[in-house]
Amino acid sequence: MQNLKKQVLEANLALVREGLVFYTWGNASGIDRERGLVVIKPSGVPYESMTVDDLVVLDLDGRVVEGRLNPSSDTPTHIELYKAFPGIGGIVHTHSTYATAWAQAGRDLPCLGTTHADFFRGPVPCTDNLTAGQLAGDYEKAVGEVIASRFSGLDPAFTPGVLVRNHGPFTWGATPAQAAYHAKVLEEVAKMAFLTLQINPSAACDQALEDRHFFRKHGPGATYGQKKQQQDF
Amino acid sequence: MQNLKKQVLEANLALVREGLVFYTWGNASGIDRERGLVVIKPSGVPYESMTVDDLVVLDLDGRVVEGRLNPSSDTPTHIELYKAFPGIGGIVHTHSTYATAWAQAGRDLPCLGTTHADFFRGPVPCTDNLTAGQLAGDYEKAVGEVIASRFSGLDPAFTPGVLVRNHGPFTWGATPAQAAYHAKVLEEVAKMAFLTLQINPSAACDQALEDRHFFRKHGPGATYGQKKQQQDF
Amino acid sequence: MQNLKKQVLEANLALVREGLVFYTWGNASGIDRERGLVVIKPSGVPYESMTVDDLVVLDLDGRVVEGRLNPSSDTPTHIELYKAFPGIGGIVHTHSTYATAWAQAGRDLPCLGTTHADFFRGPVPCTDNLTAGQLAGDYEKAVGEVIASRFSGLDPAFTPGVLVRNHGPFTWGATPAQAAYHAKVLEEVAKMAFLTLQINPSAACDQALEDRHFFRKHGPGATYGQKKQQQDF
Amino acid sequence: MQNLKKQVLEANLALVREGLVFYTWGNASGIDRERGLVVIKPSGVPYESMTVDDLVVLDLDGRVVEGRLNPSSDTPTHIELYKAFPGIGGIVHTHSTYATAWAQAGRDLPCLGTTHADFFRGPVPCTDNLTAGQLAGDYEKAVGEVIASRFSGLDPAFTPGVLVRNHGPFTWGATPAQAAYHAKVLEEVAKMAFLTLQINPSAACDQALEDRHFFRKHGPGATYGQKKQQQDF
Repeated sequence: MQNLKKQVLEANLALVREGLVFYTWGNASGIDRERGLVVIKPSGVPYESMTVDDLVVLDLDGRVVEGRLNPSSDTPTHIELYKAFPGIGGIVHTHSTYATAWAQAGRDLPCLGTTHADFFRGPVPCTDNLTAGQLAGDYEKAVGEVIASRFSGLDPAFTPGVLVRNHGPFTWGATPAQAAYHAKVLEEVAKMAFLTLQINPSAACDQALEDRHFFRKHGPGATYGQKKQQQDF
Repeated sequence: MQNLKKQVLEANLALVREGLVFYTWGNASGIDRERGLVVIKPSGVPYESMTVDDLVVLDLDGRVVEGRLNPSSDTPTHIELYKAFPGIGGIVHTHSTYATAWAQAGRDLPCLGTTHADFFRGPVPCTDNLTAGQLAGDYEKAVGEVIASRFSGLDPAFTPGVLVRNHGPFTWGATPAQAAYHAKVLEEVAKMAFLTLQINPSAACDQALEDRHFFRKHGPGATYGQKKQQQDF
Repeated sequence: MQNLKKQVLEANLALVREGLVFYTWGNASGIDRERGLVVIKPSGVPYESMTVDDLVVLDLDGRVVEGRLNPSSDTPTHIELYKAFPGIGGIVHTHSTYATAWAQAGRDLPCLGTTHADFFRGPVPCTDNLTAGQLAGDYEKAVGEVIASRFSGLDPAFTPGVLVRNHGPFTWGATPAQAAYHAKVLEEVAKMAFLTLQINPSAACDQALEDRHFFRKHGPGATYGQKKQQQDF
Repeated sequence: MQNLKKQVLEANLALVREGLVFYTWGNASGIDRERGLVVIKPSGVPYESMTVDDLVVLDLDGRVVEGRLNPSSDTPTHIELYKAFPGIGGIVHTHSTYATAWAQAGRDLPCLGTTHADFFRGPVPCTDNLTAGQLAGDYEKAVGEVIASRFSGLDPAFTPGVLVRNHGPFTWGATPAQAAYHAKVLEEVAKMAFLTLQINPSAACDQALEDRHFFRKHGPGATYGQKKQQQDF
């Protein structure tokens, strides 16, 4: 558990270092699949002073099993995603500027080039609005359900992120570090897509080029990097 | 008073650290409500060399009661706001880029997502033009009056900031630190709103989602953070 | 002369520190009016390793009187401006991003708010194209002439900068430090104006507000800062 | 070879320092023309921990002659360019934000001012789409071929860069350091051009001004800098 805590702390600090969060506006978590335990950032604690002992451990029913602080208020969303996507090992939520702008615009983020295609297969989807009932009830859990529902027919391993409408991005990966990495990629491709469409509103990318790049880094034919596990999701 | 001075100095330095002011283009103040005394940044003094002894203390009639330097030229605006909004304890003024662009555009900053809704209830209003008489008279005091007049029907505790038309933002809070925090939030949501409307000119946010987020952090039902006082305004 | 050299070196380094120049893409100079000597940055020398001994001293006929390196290739423009504007003591040229974009757009930079009005009275003018003859002849001198000609009817003390069409900004001031300060102001208001017009293409600023701010910092009625000389141009 | 390796390592690190690459998203190489050997960054290795011993040496047939790591996956593109452009000594590839946006927009980057004209003669061209056959075959080699084909009638010494459609920029130069320098110039002029056309969609630059600036720094009449070799390509 100590090792996973270190990974989660490091992923949280990476968000600050990469300019993806201000103050306490983000959170990273990781899961120990064998024990069914989630490690997550505490709520409202400054990153600068955060230590592994501040992290909170919960089971998949949302019960705190370790830690003296309240977990992130987005914890029910994380738990819902760990349940819906059994292949993922880490989750990150930010309010990073460009990804949030796309979420606020209520638009899927289109794939316009190889930077995007290297990491996300096809558009990064934007969720629907929550219903009045979802907003009134267990809101943070409902956010997770809306994401899972949006991924019907999509492979979360091939599309490791989502835009929650009028809110902001969630990303995930095999590890907390990879989830944080995808948060940075998503912010950068969201910025590039914004600029691209300002220059040429009808810009688009060939599906064949997208495929070529995505499968250069993913799946059995991958040729990128030094070791097999680096390119695996 | 020494404690309030330290808070005001720290809030001024936070503005520089967060990239909200260049040179001497901003000011933070705080008020001791019991003694009716305001502590504010001196005019035109570089932040790098500023110490608590450079800060100026004034009463609510604008008379300097402590300090050897001239107070910020915006002091009459601060005093007017402390009089109009009895619940606030700190005020910040900046010329931060995106918030100033909205002020120059003469537009209320619309709420387009949860980042905004977490801190500001509804749009951040933009003031009217000053009249010729206000410009010719006690200009800085008139700026405060125009802000107060714009807040008729609004709760300054729920909308802790304003855009002064063709000028720039003022924000406030329970403390100087919180006023500086809100200055950063305002700049960031101003940037996000600019980008959002470039991507989708008809973007908007559900009132129900706004309410859900605002009241997650404010009022008796708040569930965010570790301690009660953190989420209170 | 050693004192002026230090000021010129410091102004050049300020351009880098403020993010206004990359590599060797800018230059600052100063003039000793009594002796009629100009101190300027050498051409193509990296800022990191520049010392006062690298600076070049020239008379107003462009003859090098001190220094072992070639002066900046823009030196004839600086000399022309010192001749045309007898009240100025320092000049800065950059290719800063937003000011250069306005220059490339061939548009006067409009005054849209008090950040601009605090330092520049009215729009920052953009020059005309150079004629074929000017381009073929002493080009850098002709740039200075085109600027001086654009200032017919304008007071360089009230409008301490210009956009050279399809090229970039020149700014000036009482000292090299003030010229560098104005280069930063110009870049920032150029960015704000860009954003403002994206949000509201018909944005404008009341002349009366512009006047109120400009004369708060300039001329006999100035009320800003700690000492008389700070607000004087 | 050790000297070239140091140059290549330094060029790779310059890309990070200048903010042109995140993570491992870029690569710089150099060539020893006499020995016909190319030195290039390894694939997927973090810049922070990279040493000269991590670099890979290949011959122009793509055979690794030195190094224990896999070379950059873009190596076949570099080799193709070294073959097509015999005058160049270094190549850089990045996914820098604004240059990539132009590549994703599928538009040649127009010359709109002297910042561009100082380094690139005329527009920076954008390549055509790759054909299905090129994508299915030796893709990275085909990228090099598409670039070379796009340069039919263009002088790579006068246009030291290209935008690969829906992908990103490649730049080159006499040395790896100059290729990295051109990568930074390209990113900056791509940003300026984006902004310029937002301000004035019909902005353009006189050919005569472009010529004047380009030949101030290039060819026998160059007058910029301290030493002949600095302005030579």
